[in-house]
This record gives sequence, C-alpha cells and structure tokens, in this order.
Amino acid sequence: MNIKEIIRKKRNGFSLTKEEIEYFAFGAADGSVKDYQLSALLMAICFNGLDERETLDLTDAMARSGDMADLSAINGITGDKHSTGGVGDKTTLVVAPIVAECGVKIAKMSGRGLGHTGGTVDKLESIPGFKTSLETDEFISIVNECGICVAGQSGKLCPADKKLYGLRDATETVDNMSLIASSIMSKKLAGGADCIVLDVKCGSGAFMKDEKSAIELAEKMVEIGRGAGRKIAALITDMDTPLGKSIGNSLEIIEAVETLKGNGPEDLTEICILLAAKLLELAGKGSFDECKLLAKSKIDDGSALKKLAEMVALQGGDAEYVRNTELFPKAEFSLDVKAAESGYVTHMNAEGIGLACVALGAGRQTKEDDIDPSAGIILHKKTGDKVEKDDVIATLLCSDDALFKNAVLQFNESVTVSDEKPSAKPLLYGIVG
Amino acid sequence: MNIKEIIRKKRNGFSLTKEEIEYFAFGAADGSVKDYQLSALLMAICFNGLDERETLDLTDAMARSGDMADLSAINGITGDKHSTGGVGDKTTLVVAPIVAECGVKIAKMSGRGLGHTGGTVDKLESIPGFKTSLETDEFISIVNECGICVAGQSGKLCPADKKLYGLRDATETVDNMSLIASSIMSKKLAGGADCIVLDVKCGSGAFMKDEKSAIELAEKMVEIGRGAGRKIAALITDMDTPLGKSIGNSLEIIEAVETLKGNGPEDLTEICILLAAKLLELAGKGSFDECKLLAKSKIDDGSALKKLAEMVALQGGDAEYVRNTELFPKAEFSLDVKAAESGYVTHMNAEGIGLACVALGAGRQTKEDDIDPSAGIILHKKTGDKVEKDDVIATLLCSDDALFKNAVLQFNESVTVSDEKPSAKPLLYGIVG
Repeated sequence: MNIKEIIRKKRNGFSLTKEEIEYFAFGAADGSVKDYQLSALLMAICFNGLDERETLDLTDAMARSGDMADLSAINGITGDKHSTGGVGDKTTLVVAPIVAECGVKIAKMSGRGLGHTGGTVDKLESIPGFKTSLETDEFISIVNECGICVAGQSGKLCPADKKLYGLRDATETVDNMSLIASSIMSKKLAGGADCIVLDVKCGSGAFMKDEKSAIELAEKMVEIGRGAGRKIAALITDMDTPLGKSIGNSLEIIEAVETLKGNGPEDLTEICILLAAKLLELAGKGSFDECKLLAKSKIDDGSALKKLAEMVALQGGDAEYVRNTELFPKAEFSLDVKAAESGYVTHMNAEGIGLACVALGAGRQTKEDDIDPSAGIILHKKTGDKVEKDDVIATLLCSDDALFKNAVLQFNESVTVSDEKPSAKPLLYGIVG
Repeated sequence: MNIKEIIRKKRNGFSLTKEEIEYFAFGAADGSVKDYQLSALLMAICFNGLDERETLDLTDAMARSGDMADLSAINGITGDKHSTGGVGDKTTLVVAPIVAECGVKIAKMSGRGLGHTGGTVDKLESIPGFKTSLETDEFISIVNECGICVAGQSGKLCPADKKLYGLRDATETVDNMSLIASSIMSKKLAGGADCIVLDVKCGSGAFMKDEKSAIELAEKMVEIGRGAGRKIAALITDMDTPLGKSIGNSLEIIEAVETLKGNGPEDLTEICILLAAKLLELAGKGSFDECKLLAKSKIDDGSALKKLAEMVALQGGDAEYVRNTELFPKAEFSLDVKAAESGYVTHMNAEGIGLACVALGAGRQTKEDDIDPSAGIILHKKTGDKVEKDDVIATLLCSDDALFKNAVLQFNESVTVSDEKPSAKPLLYGIVG
C-alpha cells in the first residue's frame, strides 16, 4: 500500500478501504506519511467526500491511533457529554454532577478553550488547587469513588486527529462534515464511555451557523457512534446568543453552582436538564420525560451540587469555593456597557461576545496564552429584552483597564438594539437519535 | 495576503489574482509557504483549474522565482526547442546544429533523463571530455562563437517549479494541464529564447497518451508563450513507438550523427526536419516549406554535422567521436531478442522499451543513479514491420549480463507480434501555432 495510490483513488472519486484509511491515519499519527501528502488527501476528501463507512473507519482508526481509555475498571454504566463549543457554555459543570448523582459514571476528558469558545478544564482550574492533569489510576479511582471526574485530555489521545486537525486548520480543509464528525467522535470513542450525549450548537457563536448543517453534523456523529456500538443521541441547541448570563472562567463556575442551586438562568437550566435527561435515558434510567423529572429532582434536593463539591475535593480543589462562591477573587476593574438608545436587543452575536471576553483576558488567542480566571462578561440583557437608553446591557470585568477599549468596541459591534421586538428563537432545535 | 485565504479562494472555485499567484510561487521558492499548504492548493487547482490568465501568471512567477537567463549578450535571434520527453528522442542533437547553421542561435539548457525517458545532457556526456556544467559567460561565448551550446539546467532555474513539481509528484497532482504547461513553459521563459518550438509527444511512451490531451497541452503552452511575448509553435508527434532505432546514450549520439550525415532512420529524419523548419519559420527564415528545404540542405551539404562537431569541441568534448563514431566504446555484452512466431510487429510500447533500457543500465530509476553510456537497445524491427519466426527484433546491450534477464522480460512484454498488419500511424498529428 502506498499513500500516492490512496490520494489518487480519493482524487478520482473512489471509496477508500478500511486498510487504506488506517494506513494514512496511523501514518499521520506516527509521522510516516508526510504532511504534504496528508493535506493533499484532505483537500481531495473535501471535494469528493467520505461515505458513511469510510467516515466510521476514519473515526475508528483515529481513535485507535493513540491511547484508548480503558474504563473497564469503572463499576457500572459510563456516560459522556460533548458540546461542539460555544460561548458561556458551562453545561458540563451542571449536567455531569446531575447524571453522576443518578448513578451514571462520568469519566470525562475535556478540552481547553481556544478562540471565542471556553473550555471546561480552564473553568475548573479557577478553583484553587483543582488538578486536571491526572494519572489513569487516579482518574478511575475518583470516578469509582464519587461517580465523576473531569480531566484534561492526554497528549496521547487520538494523535492522528491532532495531526490531521492541525493540517486542516492550516489548509482550509476544516469544513467537511465527515472530517468534523470523525474528529469529534474519534475522541469520544477513545474516551470509552458507553453512552454519549452530544450538544450540537447552532448559530452565530457556533461552528455550525445554521440549523441544516447542525442537523447534518448531529446525524453524522450519531451514525458514527452507533456504528461503533455506543448508545448515542444529539441535541441541536441554540448558540446564536451566549448561554446563560456569565462568560468567563470563574464567572461560569459561579453560574453553574447557581444553576445547581436552582437559581440559574432559564435557558441554561433548561438545556442542562434536557442534556442530562437524554444521557440518563440512553443509560436506561427511564423515558426522556421521566429522566427530565429525575434530573430536576437532583437540583431541587441539592444532591447534584454536593456531588460537584465532592468531585472538586477529590480532584484537589477547595470545595469551599463551590459552597460559597463569594470566595472567588473579583476582577480588579469593571465597566458597565450601557444602551445608547431605547428599544429591544435584537441580536447578540455570540462569537463576537466570546471574542470580547478574549480581549478582556478570559480566553486564548493562541494555545500558549495565559488566561485570567476572573475576567469576563456578565450580561444583564439578552436577545429579546427591552432596554431603555442608558440601561446597563453588560458588565465587563478584567485585571487591566487598558483592555476595556478593544473589548467594548468588540462587544458593541456584537450587540444590536433596534425598535422592533425580535421573534423568539427556540432553545432546542431538535433531537437526533 | 495569506496562504490560507488563497487556498480557500481556489477551493471555492474563484480565480486567483496575479499577486496571489506570485505570493505562493515565490513562497514555494523561498520556503516561506509550507509544503502542506502548497500541496493542498495544488489539489484544489486540480479540482477547480486555472484559467488562461492564471496559468500565464503562474508560469511567469515560476520563471521569475530564480535566475532568468540573460541572452542579451548573444548576437542575433535565439531559438529553443523542447520535447515533452520520449524514448529514443535524440532530435535536439540533430535539430540544434541544423538551426544554428541557418543563423538562429541555440542557447539551450537541457535536462537529464529520469524513468523511461532519456536526457540530452546524459547523451552528450557519453562523448569524452564533454562539459555540460558551464558558467554563464562561457555559455554565452560558446553560443556567440559557434551559434550553439547545450548546457545542463542550473539549480537556480525556476526553484518554484522545482518545489511544486516535487510536491505534485508526491501528491498525485501531476496531471493537470495548466500545471504541466506552466511547469514546462516556466523553464522556457527563464531560458530566454526569442523563438520556441515544442515537440509534444503523444502515445504509449509519452506523458500524453492520446492525441486529444497532447493537442490540449500544446495549445496551452503556445498560449502561454504568446502571452509572454515569445514566437512559439508546437508539433504533436508520435511517441507510441520509440523514435529511430537506437535507445541509449552513446547509441543515440551515433544515430544523431548518422542522421546529420543523411543516413538516419526515416521517422527520426522527418521529425527533425519538421522541428527545425518550424523553428526557422518562427525566426523569420522563410515559409514552412522553404524552411524544410533549408533544413534539409544543411544535412545534405554536411554543414550541420560540422556544426555539431564544432560545438562538441568548444564544450571540451573530443570532436573525433562525432566524426568517427566507431570510437565510442562498445557494450561488453549483447543479446539478440528473436521473434517467437511469424507475423507483424503490431505494437512496441515505447514506455516499456524505455524501462527495458533502464534495466540495462542506460537510464535512471532515481535521480542519484549512475548511467552506463554504452548500454541500450537497437531495434531491428519496428511497429508495422513483418517478422519471420527467429528474426532478430532487437539487440540488447549492457556491461553486466546479469541485467539481461529483467530487461528481456520487460522488452518482450512491450512488443506485440500478431497475424494482422497494423494500420500505419501518422508521425505528425498536427501543428499548433
């Protein structure tokens, strides 16, 4: 077998065999296939596509290109939740403790934030002492002890995906559904969970800008997950506007805690209940409606919040911060952004607001950047809200007031106020699987 | 400007501007654009094409990416002849002296052989002392003194093409007409001649296997040459069967000398007269028919042969070898391949026969291989000839009789003998320009 034949085959529109797909995926992982050959192949894939079987084979090969999480030492059924990334998306921090409290083990490897989207690992690290870099046996033992552990992704997880993703980013071959789906799902398959719920975001702050492409991606990922023998479903949810009211690392921990106390913003609470319920349903805990009630009960009785505190403590974090969020250090500087005129907030571009947070120091422009845990944005108004002139729309927080200038510019560009009340958008576009 | 935007534009089917084309071509030459980005762009070009203007801009940028030959110090009009490569193609050795003798200066940079095709530089180096590596002033002064010089290509000629060609070869993006045409023509433009005649080969031994694609390539190259202000024409000639009867380095020098003496094989003589006449016509030496007579007269009066000897001497070679080809060392071993049955030679696959020569040591499998100047094949029968059982079809020559086994296998696979006399194929398919 040789890579030139594989490129030619795909260029000429033929399907690749499982062996051919393994050849280039493993070659990407171990460096035996050259980058310039991989990128030519990726471009040919963008033009001629991958069929269902090829996509599954690619996902499987990328999953097996590195370490596969061995969850066999975990007692009971395991669940995983994945979001395609958004702004203000702290659902994992709410969903995981609820689900764990219902007896489904969450052994989750999570990513860091990049660009306008945040990462769960970064958020958790705003809790003093919290460790996200764990040895496998430590990880497994925490899951067995409290039912939940959230760790950073190991460098050895899906090296083929890491290589191919880097090349796709540099060669404008990112936006192919099969490549996107296989990249996400390879990490889920390597993660080892029995049941997987996907939160496919849709709208201005999401990678999928429209409903049609979000559904297409959801269907492809569910197809892959089933093909690999997992229980899987996807919710297509709105990310046209940020989720909840807080964006920023410790700010989102605080909002997640409030949500677990039953005081969270309506949109965030609803999405968390839906995601938790779908995962519980996949794990055999009852019908979707029954699982919604079950999930809600774990908020109402305070047990999910306790579960989060338990996990934080086991991962070395100071659980007092979960019980009393006043302990989180406040950002040194704050600035209110006010409405220039009266009317309705007709649009809040989630990506733009995410970038305003990056400008405040809450996110990363490049992988190497440090982040400021207390920086971020608190939204006082959201899409659809009525505002009077000089009403505070948002409070921007940071540790260096020189950062406000660009952040305010970016924020104002992302918010539209006009006379007409916008029609309400659904929070949930649909469920696949 | 950045390379990702350029890739995206081409991937989405748009034309690239002159500046964008220069950006990636110069970036290929100086290494500032990554190989994996270039190969993704090349694949996108294979899918979405380059229009006429883009192709000219790419050719021009690649030509200017390195040294441009400055032929201004040459007195009089300059001509160049290029063949797309074939088996037994020694036309340069015949055409160049004829044309030079008619007053058109030939300052030719020529390549080495690779794979089944031979290279003029390798052939000339079978003459003891012949130097193909020349300083520019030496090169120009030889042209001015005798009207002709054939040197090896400098490493600084078209580095962008060198880089892109290497990537195309490794990523199955060779067979795009615009890329092929611009690769060849960039070297012709950098070579600096006023008039260019192209010999586009067509058939089993050529890169273009059929007439339609050979014509398409010829048209594209003529278009580029005219766009760059050169006088240019292309002949589409047969390379379904090797040209002439001798294949191998010193064997082809001997056959070229015989042709210049008026004793050459008919097919070779005819093609050489046509190519020389077309170049002379472009240089304003008369009509095509007049130029054919003029070219023929330089064979008949022996002056073209003298011209070749003069060039050989000025390039440090022993001109006695041209005057008396018996001086060339003979290969130590020879083997006659005989007809297994009576009938007609219905096909001689030129590429296969070229590869048989490589197996005998006459050519290179990789750029680093040494070649054996006396090895090769002499064809006693060619396509269309009648053979009786045990007639000698060809004589194989080499310096190590262990090489015969594979060479004979390869040769026999390339020759078809059957009952029916094949219909004659034209030697010249057409003229473009």
